[in-house]
Amino acid sequence: MDAVEALATEETPHAETTHSAHSGPHGYSARKDDHVKRLRRIEGQVRGLQRMVENDTYCIDILTQVSASTKALQSFALSLLEEHLRHCVADAMEKGGAEAEEKVAEATAAISRLLRS
Amino acid sequence: MDAVEALATEETPHAETTHSAHSGPHGYSARKDDHVKRLRRIEGQVRGLQRMVENDTYCIDILTQVSASTKALQSFALSLLEEHLRHCVADAMEKGGAEAEEKVAEATAAISRLLRS
Amino acid sequence: MDAVEALATEETPHAETTHSAHSGPHGYSARKDDHVKRLRRIEGQVRGLQRMVENDTYCIDILTQVSASTKALQSFALSLLEEHLRHCVADAMEKGGAEAEEKVAEATAAISRLLRS
Amino acid sequence: MDAVEALATEETPHAETTHSAHSGPHGYSARKDDHVKRLRRIEGQVRGLQRMVENDTYCIDILTQVSASTKALQSFALSLLEEHLRHCVADAMEKGGAEAEEKVAEATAAISRLLRS
Repeated sequence: MDAVEALATEETPHAETTHSAHSGPHGYSARKDDHVKRLRRIEGQVRGLQRMVENDTYCIDILTQVSASTKALQSFALSLLEEHLRHCVADAMEKGGAEAEEKVAEATAAISRLLRS
Repeated sequence: MDAVEALATEETPHAETTHSAHSGPHGYSARKDDHVKRLRRIEGQVRGLQRMVENDTYCIDILTQVSASTKALQSFALSLLEEHLRHCVADAMEKGGAEAEEKVAEATAAISRLLRS
Repeated sequence: MDAVEALATEETPHAETTHSAHSGPHGYSARKDDHVKRLRRIEGQVRGLQRMVENDTYCIDILTQVSASTKALQSFALSLLEEHLRHCVADAMEKGGAEAEEKVAEATAAISRLLRS
Repeated sequence: MDAVEALATEETPHAETTHSAHSGPHGYSARKDDHVKRLRRIEGQVRGLQRMVENDTYCIDILTQVSASTKALQSFALSLLEEHLRHCVADAMEKGGAEAEEKVAEATAAISRLLRS
């Protein structure tokens, strides 16, 4: 919602490959490249896990690699969440009222899902 | 690494004490296909996350998908761990002594890493 | 308990910046009683764990109870965090600038600690 | 292993307060005192949390203490689990068959609950 307004004043929200200085409608948009790179590394880790299984790698070594991938995903989630709080939630809070309440409840629910996963 | 070498010299994985139908040198070998399929789905989820970031998907929706991927990885780890206990640790326990102690300590350390990740 | 009652008679915690109905200096102050009650139940669970160990309860049953206590603590943390975002972080965001940035970084670090624990 | 066998011939598993050298029927019995002491410390931490709430301690500091308590509970669970694998599961594995399978499935389910909590 807040994103829409931010977008309204922005001439070219994300024309081609403008990946810097808040080029998109969400909190994380400024770091899109970083996030995609990070996720590619995680994708590589998961492909590595497949090779480990195919090559009969020792179970415990696979589990160690799973822990590393899970940690990397959680760490990605945390950086996304931080930007979400810093931008989307902050925008909602500026306007105050029901929308702010909603955004906080929504973020808390997301944190709860991360904790349970 | 050690697993691979052990594998090279091993003619008959563990002839006498072969627990059920596992065809390879590790507990999870019988379900290798399942595991690889599962990991491919997780790889697909992580690629989906990249598309979500690229398409400016709402942060919270990305976080929900991260939770799903983390849960899938943990679930994979648990099934691997179960087979490890059922086979590798069971084998070591049959022989008893220091090796059994070691295997249990090693499995516990792996569980601890999963809990902390 | 008496601290909570004392709070009720507290004149004006921080008059100017009082956001909505919270009666104390922190986001969670309005629900102090609830929180303390909740923590007492968790304390009771931990005492129950001691009895279980003393009475030689089966290991797995103790582990189930540990999971319940951990979940209860996480759930308490989440409700505290939600109120913190709703009040303390919102206050900082209203003022904006460095303080808001700091509060968000601080909250993110706390979430990270919860995820790793 | 031999400790467990010794236990089989024991007349009175935990007569009075014999808290040493495998005095009880479970894997963790030898360390009962340690476990109870550990749980008492955790109980103290949870009581500390109540005082923090009552004294209007800053939310983030309370969250840090919650993380510490959760970590302590998880660590207690891990040591219990390790002893469970080392003794109860090992015993079942010695007998083999359905009971061993069951014990491993049961332990895995307990680990899963810990991961989700």
